Formats: sequence, C-alpha cells, structure tokens
Amino acid sequence: MGTTQLGSVAEPKYWHLKTVLTEALDTDFSVGEILPNERDLAARFGVARATLRQALEQLELEGRLQRRRGVGTTVAPPRVGVAVPTARPDWTGAVGEDWQPVDCTATAVPAAVAKLLDLDIEAVEAGTPVHTVRRIRLSHGQPVAAELLYVPGSSVPDLSAIDAPAGPVRARSVLRELERVGLEGQDRAVELGSASADDAKELDRLPGAPVLVVTTRYFARGGTAAVSVATYRADTCRLTFGDSGAVEISHEQERRAS
Amino acid sequence: MGTTQLGSVAEPKYWHLKTVLTEALDTDFSVGEILPNERDLAARFGVARATLRQALEQLELEGRLQRRRGVGTTVAPPRVGVAVPTARPDWTGAVGEDWQPVDCTATAVPAAVAKLLDLDIEAVEAGTPVHTVRRIRLSHGQPVAAELLYVPGSSVPDLSAIDAPAGPVRARSVLRELERVGLEGQDRAVELGSASADDAKELDRLPGAPVLVVTTRYFARGGTAAVSVATYRADTCRLTFGDSGAVEISHEQERRAS
Repeated sequence: MGTTQLGSVAEPKYWHLKTVLTEALDTDFSVGEILPNERDLAARFGVARATLRQALEQLELEGRLQRRRGVGTTVAPPRVGVAVPTARPDWTGAVGEDWQPVDCTATAVPAAVAKLLDLDIEAVEAGTPVHTVRRIRLSHGQPVAAELLYVPGSSVPDLSAIDAPAGPVRARSVLRELERVGLEGQDRAVELGSASADDAKELDRLPGAPVLVVTTRYFARGGTAAVSVATYRADTCRLTFGDSGAVEISHEQERRAS
Repeated sequence: MGTTQLGSVAEPKYWHLKTVLTEALDTDFSVGEILPNERDLAARFGVARATLRQALEQLELEGRLQRRRGVGTTVAPPRVGVAVPTARPDWTGAVGEDWQPVDCTATAVPAAVAKLLDLDIEAVEAGTPVHTVRRIRLSHGQPVAAELLYVPGSSVPDLSAIDAPAGPVRARSVLRELERVGLEGQDRAVELGSASADDAKELDRLPGAPVLVVTTRYFARGGTAAVSVATYRADTCRLTFGDSGAVEISHEQERRAS
C-alpha cells in the first residue's frame, strides 16, 4: 500500500485519500482481507483519523469495503447484479424460486399503501382485508431483499377462507390466487432508504443500514391489484433492468465505470 | 414534539427514536423548518447525543431531513420523482429539454468503460477516440443528475472533424450524430455510490454524498453504441420506471409505503 503522504490538494482531503485507497484496494488487497486498523492506516497515509474515517465511509457506500462489528474492515466481494423483473411476475415461483414466502398476515395497512392501492381509507378502517405477504429474495443462497406484498381481498376474491389463516401456507395461497389475475402493467420507483428493524434482521444487517427501496404497483382491471415494497441490501446489490434479455453488466466493469 | 421519554425497547434505541421523530416530523413540523439543535433534541427525548445523531442520519438517508453546514438540520421537501427513460432516448432534446449538454472531451476512457463498450483496450491505447459528453439533468430548475456519456468514434462515423473540438457545441454535434444511430435496445443498473468531486459540484452537494448511480448501455448494430454513467442525488430523487405510461407514484404515498 506504500507510504504515500498526501500533499495539499484542491479537493477535500478525504476525497483524495479515497482515490488513493481505491487504487490500493485494486492492486494490493484481495477480497475478504482485513484492513489494518484505523490508527495504523491514518499513520501510514499521514492523515487524521477523522479524515480516514470519512474516506472509509465513502468506500463503504461504494460497496468496496464492509465494516462489521467484531471483525473490522474487510475488502468487500464484488456487488451482485440482481435483476429487477420487469416482465409479468411469476408469483408462484415456478421460475423465480429465489423469492421465498415466509409469512402472510391480514394486519392493518399503512394509509400510504392504501392510497397506492386506490383503497378507500374508510373501507380499510371498516375492515376490508388486505393480505400482507412477506417474502425474502435469495441470490446464491444469500438474502438480498425483504419484501412486503400488499394484496387487497378484492384482488383475490376466490381465496379460500378455510385455508391457514397466516404463515407461509397462507402466503402461497394468496400468491396462487394473484397468479390468476390478468395483470396489465406495472410501474416502479427506486430510492435510498434505511433498513427497518424487521428488514435488517432478514438481511443480516444492522437497523438503519442503507438500502435500496423498490416500490412496485401492479395494475389489473383498470386499478391497482397489488403493491410491493422490496428492500434490497445497498452494500452488496446492484439492481439491473434489461429490455434486451438478461444482459448482465459485470461488477468489475460497472463499478469502475461509475 | 412532546417530551416523550424513551423506555427500554428490544430494537436499538436510535431506531425507536427515529420512529418517534418521524411521527413528530409528520405532525409538528413543516418543510424547510429548522430543527432544534442536537443538545436540545437529545435532552427533549432523553437520549444521548450519539443516539440522536444516529437517528438523524437514518432520517437523512430516508430523505426526511437535510443537514447543511451553516444552516443546521431542516425538514426536507418531498423527494422528486425523476423518470428514468426506458424508451428510445431523445438525444437532441426536442422532448427532453431537461438534459443539458455542458461539455465534450476526447480524453482517455477508463478501462472499465472500454470493456462495457466492447472496445479493444489496445485500440483505446492506440488512440481510438471516445467522445465523452457531460450532461446535467435538471428537474424544476434544480440539478438532479450529472452524466458522462461515452460515445466511441465508430458509433458516430460522420461526425465532422472541423466542428468545435470540445465544449457544449461539440457535445451537441455528437448527440446529433448519435440520434441517427438506430438503437436496438438498452439495459441499465442502479446502485448506491458516493459523489465524485466533479459530480458533487454540479449537484450542489459535498463530495462523498450518497448518490444513485445509473449505468446504461445502448445497443446498436449488434454491439454497444454508447454507455452512460449518470449520478442522481439520492437525497432528493426517487427514480421512477414505468411500463404503463407516465404513472407517477407521489412522494408522500411512496415514502410512507416504504
């Protein structure tokens, strides 16, 4: 990693340090390797620890480093490209085995979700059921996303009332009925967020970790049949969208391009 | 905002505090309002300043608060939904007037971009020109994204050599020629990143601020005709993708749904 001393530069010191560290990560370190501690690193580069910490935070945002309690700072593996499906979803998972239904409840729906579903707030308060399916998305065996899928009772009118009232069995029943709805389209939004306590637990992160929140509306019969709020790990995931098949931008190429 | 004291809870203290603060922002504060200082806030909620700071950081990630030097912490305006175009791009801006070309250079291209462009590294080193167009995207008059669009000389063979060698005029020439290419498709990736010094300046942020990096490959004639690396402000932007027209998920709905 050398003993480069940082001179005065026009850009913020931590930014320049970040550039120097990035080059060092590319050439001198391998994935999973533990970095020297902050005190040693700061001394090696001739910077204050606060400056070092800022640079490390940037590298964490960019997915180059992982900081874990009790382990220290390690060189992160390449981000995983996770395809966000833009075609008709396959709810029951014949293809998308990577989405695992873990629960289904009929608890109260946030007012905002009710609005996205074009539900009448009063109807919701009066007890119109909205099935809330919780799913976990796996990629290479690791959890990459936690999803809440809100399905109004009116979208799945033939759902049997004698099924299990909750749990994964119920979740599968709801998804099976949703599969029968002729979806007409969808739209989605992606934004930065922080992991809720529930999501953090599923994703093996601390609450508050940066996440990419993907909100999808599914349209059918001129209305909104379901709303999905999926929380993706921002440290390890790169969301991919393709209209030309499953062309995958490799991590190395993509990361350096940005 | 009351004087709620936080009792012991299973979830981390700052997470619970964040929930309490979120409710307070919804009910007691208006957009642009400056929050009390950290010392007062910490005292009011009966938490340590470190706990308060963690909660404020989460709210900043979620776009609820903005922290600016010299101003303090203010309640953020709703995030702006920014549509990521998934149809054939309109390079010359007859429709997309919100993309402003600001410069065009023919400097060296990062090896990673060369790979995305299927360019031969040796050809690049031998001087094959790649035009690098810099554009700024505005929304409601505010910069929301800074883009580098890489266009190999082979994609725009009829570009006149006697045009301006650089600058916005050159940028427009390159875009005009690119407009004539029959694009066959595109794919894109979205990931978390941190703003470079250049991007930060264009976006009125500090270097290292969290950004959403959108990398798009444009395909033509069986290859990659151009690569765009666009950096969106993560604090103020929500990226929207629609296949059902310009259906817009309103900020309020979307934010609370997540």
